[in-house]
Amino acid sequence: MKRINFINPFGTKAYDEIIWKTLSNYCSSDTELHVTHLENCPSDIDFFYSKHMIEQSLYEAVLKSEEAGYDAVIVGCLYDPGVRAARELVDIPIVGPLEASFQTASYFGHSTMVLTDHRKAVPYISDQARLNAQGETVRGVEAIDWFVKDMINDRSAVVRDVVERSKVAAERFGAETVILGCTIIAAIYQEHLMEGGAPSSIPIINPNLMALKIAEALADLYKNKAYFIARDGFYMKPSGHHEQEFRKARKIWNQSAIDFSK
Amino acid sequence: MKRINFINPFGTKAYDEIIWKTLSNYCSSDTELHVTHLENCPSDIDFFYSKHMIEQSLYEAVLKSEEAGYDAVIVGCLYDPGVRAARELVDIPIVGPLEASFQTASYFGHSTMVLTDHRKAVPYISDQARLNAQGETVRGVEAIDWFVKDMINDRSAVVRDVVERSKVAAERFGAETVILGCTIIAAIYQEHLMEGGAPSSIPIINPNLMALKIAEALADLYKNKAYFIARDGFYMKPSGHHEQEFRKARKIWNQSAIDFSK
Amino acid sequence: MKRINFINPFGTKAYDEIIWKTLSNYCSSDTELHVTHLENCPSDIDFFYSKHMIEQSLYEAVLKSEEAGYDAVIVGCLYDPGVRAARELVDIPIVGPLEASFQTASYFGHSTMVLTDHRKAVPYISDQARLNAQGETVRGVEAIDWFVKDMINDRSAVVRDVVERSKVAAERFGAETVILGCTIIAAIYQEHLMEGGAPSSIPIINPNLMALKIAEALADLYKNKAYFIARDGFYMKPSGHHEQEFRKARKIWNQSAIDFSK
Amino acid sequence: MKRINFINPFGTKAYDEIIWKTLSNYCSSDTELHVTHLENCPSDIDFFYSKHMIEQSLYEAVLKSEEAGYDAVIVGCLYDPGVRAARELVDIPIVGPLEASFQTASYFGHSTMVLTDHRKAVPYISDQARLNAQGETVRGVEAIDWFVKDMINDRSAVVRDVVERSKVAAERFGAETVILGCTIIAAIYQEHLMEGGAPSSIPIINPNLMALKIAEALADLYKNKAYFIARDGFYMKPSGHHEQEFRKARKIWNQSAIDFSK
Amino acid sequence: MKRINFINPFGTKAYDEIIWKTLSNYCSSDTELHVTHLENCPSDIDFFYSKHMIEQSLYEAVLKSEEAGYDAVIVGCLYDPGVRAARELVDIPIVGPLEASFQTASYFGHSTMVLTDHRKAVPYISDQARLNAQGETVRGVEAIDWFVKDMINDRSAVVRDVVERSKVAAERFGAETVILGCTIIAAIYQEHLMEGGAPSSIPIINPNLMALKIAEALADLYKNKAYFIARDGFYMKPSGHHEQEFRKARKIWNQSAIDFSK
Amino acid sequence: MKRINFINPFGTKAYDEIIWKTLSNYCSSDTELHVTHLENCPSDIDFFYSKHMIEQSLYEAVLKSEEAGYDAVIVGCLYDPGVRAARELVDIPIVGPLEASFQTASYFGHSTMVLTDHRKAVPYISDQARLNAQGETVRGVEAIDWFVKDMINDRSAVVRDVVERSKVAAERFGAETVILGCTIIAAIYQEHLMEGGAPSSIPIINPNLMALKIAEALADLYKNKAYFIARDGFYMKPSGHHEQEFRKARKIWNQSAIDFSK
Repeated sequence: MKRINFINPFGTKAYDEIIWKTLSNYCSSDTELHVTHLENCPSDIDFFYSKHMIEQSLYEAVLKSEEAGYDAVIVGCLYDPGVRAARELVDIPIVGPLEASFQTASYFGHSTMVLTDHRKAVPYISDQARLNAQGETVRGVEAIDWFVKDMINDRSAVVRDVVERSKVAAERFGAETVILGCTIIAAIYQEHLMEGGAPSSIPIINPNLMALKIAEALADLYKNKAYFIARDGFYMKPSGHHEQEFRKARKIWNQSAIDFSK
Repeated sequence: MKRINFINPFGTKAYDEIIWKTLSNYCSSDTELHVTHLENCPSDIDFFYSKHMIEQSLYEAVLKSEEAGYDAVIVGCLYDPGVRAARELVDIPIVGPLEASFQTASYFGHSTMVLTDHRKAVPYISDQARLNAQGETVRGVEAIDWFVKDMINDRSAVVRDVVERSKVAAERFGAETVILGCTIIAAIYQEHLMEGGAPSSIPIINPNLMALKIAEALADLYKNKAYFIARDGFYMKPSGHHEQEFRKARKIWNQSAIDFSK
Repeated sequence: MKRINFINPFGTKAYDEIIWKTLSNYCSSDTELHVTHLENCPSDIDFFYSKHMIEQSLYEAVLKSEEAGYDAVIVGCLYDPGVRAARELVDIPIVGPLEASFQTASYFGHSTMVLTDHRKAVPYISDQARLNAQGETVRGVEAIDWFVKDMINDRSAVVRDVVERSKVAAERFGAETVILGCTIIAAIYQEHLMEGGAPSSIPIINPNLMALKIAEALADLYKNKAYFIARDGFYMKPSGHHEQEFRKARKIWNQSAIDFSK
Repeated sequence: MKRINFINPFGTKAYDEIIWKTLSNYCSSDTELHVTHLENCPSDIDFFYSKHMIEQSLYEAVLKSEEAGYDAVIVGCLYDPGVRAARELVDIPIVGPLEASFQTASYFGHSTMVLTDHRKAVPYISDQARLNAQGETVRGVEAIDWFVKDMINDRSAVVRDVVERSKVAAERFGAETVILGCTIIAAIYQEHLMEGGAPSSIPIINPNLMALKIAEALADLYKNKAYFIARDGFYMKPSGHHEQEFRKARKIWNQSAIDFSK
Repeated sequence: MKRINFINPFGTKAYDEIIWKTLSNYCSSDTELHVTHLENCPSDIDFFYSKHMIEQSLYEAVLKSEEAGYDAVIVGCLYDPGVRAARELVDIPIVGPLEASFQTASYFGHSTMVLTDHRKAVPYISDQARLNAQGETVRGVEAIDWFVKDMINDRSAVVRDVVERSKVAAERFGAETVILGCTIIAAIYQEHLMEGGAPSSIPIINPNLMALKIAEALADLYKNKAYFIARDGFYMKPSGHHEQEFRKARKIWNQSAIDFSK
Repeated sequence: MKRINFINPFGTKAYDEIIWKTLSNYCSSDTELHVTHLENCPSDIDFFYSKHMIEQSLYEAVLKSEEAGYDAVIVGCLYDPGVRAARELVDIPIVGPLEASFQTASYFGHSTMVLTDHRKAVPYISDQARLNAQGETVRGVEAIDWFVKDMINDRSAVVRDVVERSKVAAERFGAETVILGCTIIAAIYQEHLMEGGAPSSIPIINPNLMALKIAEALADLYKNKAYFIARDGFYMKPSGHHEQEFRKARKIWNQSAIDFSK
């Protein structure tokens, strides 16, 4: 049995249910999936200041996930917030849904694009494509211009926008498939499909599913001692003086009563 | 239970055992893995003429795999021979180990490179990196200059070369990890590890494992009706007149008594 | 006198006449041009399965061309089917019209694009641009959405679509010229010009002409012992055991009575 | 008079003096330069966890700089830590020395590279080059393998390594100049020059100077109402609900007694 | 006091006043700015033949600027005419407004594009972006289709076109800001702003200002002996025989009575 | 009969003979090749100031070549000096040997590199590769560090350096072939071959031959009314006021007695 923690990097439980509802059905038979959220941090990740505070909470949640015996962690937001820094901290695999979608998109079509929530995320996701060294197969990024906090309350409007905008955007960029660039949009659309709704005419990639399947794959390898991460460069862990500084800082953080979610 | 066919795209059974030996151990608990090879085709894939004939046999094997109820196929050679064309033919996912390794390398280190068998494969694999739109994270390709048919008979020399050349090549290209660019090299190295041999100082990615885990991930999605491939562009299937021509050609091929393996 | 074989890679003579009609006029004075087609293979190359069978026949035709004393071969389809693999087999130059058009486009304008026949070919040709390491001067690829087999029967409609769509596509992509991405479209358009038809307002590059002129150039060098191809990497020829395997496989192929054109 | 705050993003005053000493001499005549450091955060930024905590303190320092009437801020570390996120928060220009060096390198030579402190920073800086969309003029990144905290105590060894390694690295990558990829290395080397030491045979770019001159340029524009930043995309500021959440979170952070520097 | 020569690379004084009017206001307090033009050369630079003759005059003006004690030169045209060659000739910094705008655009928004005068300049400026190794942050180039000589006489029409076309172009290319790709367009638009005109809804970058601020920055460094240019590669100066040849050719040029401006 | 003018862009007849000797042998049977040089301009093109003056003379020579009925012009230097600007002036095809070599290199091997004369040319040729949008198939540029004027007097040393340095450089960059990045080096090496000298172990591409064959190809098309260049963008010709200015400036240039070759 492999244990996976899908962390919603938001200081609210508002999104846990829909993620669980639209993801648990697709687990491998020996996967124990938990959907959790963060404590003491802002509820919205859209702006960089709150994203930074959320990441601080996320690091602790990731460290605790490893201590609790999880075999992999998914950071459930298309910003892939804190994903790379988290790999410095733990030896279990850390998966971001955007990276996972970029990696698996080639099985769904020759080229892809990302349709995200808000226009602030468009350049951010373009940068992530560049950072992940995605080349010409990721053709563009566009937004439906919703903030996450509003979407959950008007799901049918979100589905309608996804279906309409995917078609237009895929044509604009010459992409064969569309990655939904927000875990909540993706969950709402998946719920729509699970309830028998008509699919988009453009094939749509659900990043939550991609993250889940990649996390399962790496969790298997981790349990079989076949997962590891190069520790002599980017993902070097602190040692000696630097390790002590890390332990001290983590302790101070945990002892503080700081709570941004109030 | 998901059923996966790992096809050795060679007209010989010589490599089936070592692939099985070094791969079956890493399957998910509900995976039924078969390791098979091709019939009636050349035994070596190194040169393009024989590769082409092997691919012709592969297409038939892939079509029969779908008919036999497999949920995914792995084409077991780092040329990823026939992988894209095969996706035109069937609806089950088709996985190539090179593409799968490019996709998962980011979990093992910040950058990677490929160490392949023979120098003819070096530019070929560079082209595949370009075709797969891999950017700067794949830093280079180099060869240990062995042909596959010779490696199987001198395994310890292969292991020695892998360990030595990985170190030099990773330094040359500034790569944090090394993908072994040949399924047989990878299997020999994995056997060495499984027998307690010392690992390379540079983290090494086994493409067979990567292909297996991606195939399992996609097979799960396929069984859950969540795998599909865009059919309106590159992977369009023939219809009408073109479908009839396809069926006729396939029938003629199967009725011919042609056997390149004699 | 240099001898050039323009092979229509189709199992039909249907396109030989129009190619001859629109190409022979532009030969150098000492060129002996032959326009031929393949035997025993499918008539349409649009789908990858039939393309693969066509390429198998093509390799034999290329080998026979060298044996017959040709100084260069043109493979007359914008897929450039089998062009690279064919270079493994013979020492005479092998020219594909897409590659030749990419190479010469800079003499016709600052940037270019490709207007091809069917939408399945759009991502294929984009990939070829990437494989040929064409950079930003090839601005995009678009299709007029015809299959080759239909075009030959409605030539004026093809010309009309070429003229209209070139203008729209060049504007969309910011390209100064348009390469016609199909030898038959190109021949139909050239026939239209030769019959006094009005040219497109956007300068159009005929890939057949580009292939012819590059083939003549290389044929001259070949006859002067100044053409050669690096044999220590991608274009390495089989030797020893591998050469025997090649000869055996070729013999088996030629002895088989296989005929996909029936 | 334009006022510039050069913030050493370290929870220590250890580096303030050498930065002041090697930078103040190069100010424009109407520049009031302050060199400051952060409070309550870790002293070393090398690892990502401590970098994250430092950035949290940095945001507050940047906000306070704007409130205090500074016309520009320099974040004095070649990680360019928090530079982009800080631009979300304030309207004064925020300058990172790595970005500034990339931008001005073309005036010092045709191509450049970065020579940084520790090997963990090598892939990080490569990523920054990619994020800043630097193309082929930045040829590579290499490290002298020192941690910042050790350098300050052995300055002559640092200078020796800079001179020797610059020459070797520039030759390896074919670069005409070398950007010192650490503000402290750069200050130590500048001090060496100011004390009459012999310069490197390869022209060396001091990122502190580049950041200073870019900050002055932008501060002039800011004071003349000619500096602004596009607020409708990546640098959108929170408004409405999101602005309230930002204000609340900032207040909570400031009220907490958290101090990672203990 | 730093002295900067902004050279209008046109054989006419027609543009000196508007450049001075819209630039002098933004100088640093210790900058002595001169706006000059060329003698004896064509008045329009749009076409390559006249541009070449203008560059010949420019080199002499640049050499004389150094002899006259200027600390930096700006070549005031978005072609950045002769900028690189001029760096071979003198040790003072030479600044082109296009290069300076590319370099500073990141402070104004996440991505940019260029809106230039005439369509002939569009591919030219695309090439400059490539030569300057600008990556994906420069999203495109477009023209308002005016020749410089006409703009000066119909300023309000130019402003109207800038405002309208910037919006459309930025949306087309997904750019957050627009660089005005012609010094005269930029001056006309700046004049409009200085006279209280409404700004474009898309943030606009004035290349003249960017060139000025970069020139001031480098002039400061030059006066402080901290500016230099690598002389062992692209910017190598002639020595020995080659230096004599340069001196002789310059003398001949200066002694000739040639005057293209007649 | 097609007439081609190979212009040595040097103010000396010193190189005409060796170019003729090593090129005329490879002409097509209906080619009338002339090898000429420029008058009244500097003899060496290595530095940018003299290159600019040479280009001024070249434009006149190109204009006169068209008037004299040539069907194509080759500008015989690997700087491809003035090639693009010359296309603004005339309707006959203008060929540069570097561009021609980039375009035809794929027929000689999978990848290539340039080995040029002097180190100042290395970044220049890298830029040309970028301007010509050459991608990853051009792997690098290196120099043998000779100036052209010295080579002609010590030909055997040049050959020795070519053979030795090609091998080392090709290995360094992973290139399968080497383009000689200077017409004179190439001619000296070709002379060596023609006199029975041993060839380099790395296949070498002679840019003079490539330019000749491309020029012949385009000259054929030109004579057949099938060559044209897009005149609505980069290669727009001056008309109206601008055409008058061009004619006036050309006349002034021709009437001046200026002679840089004295």
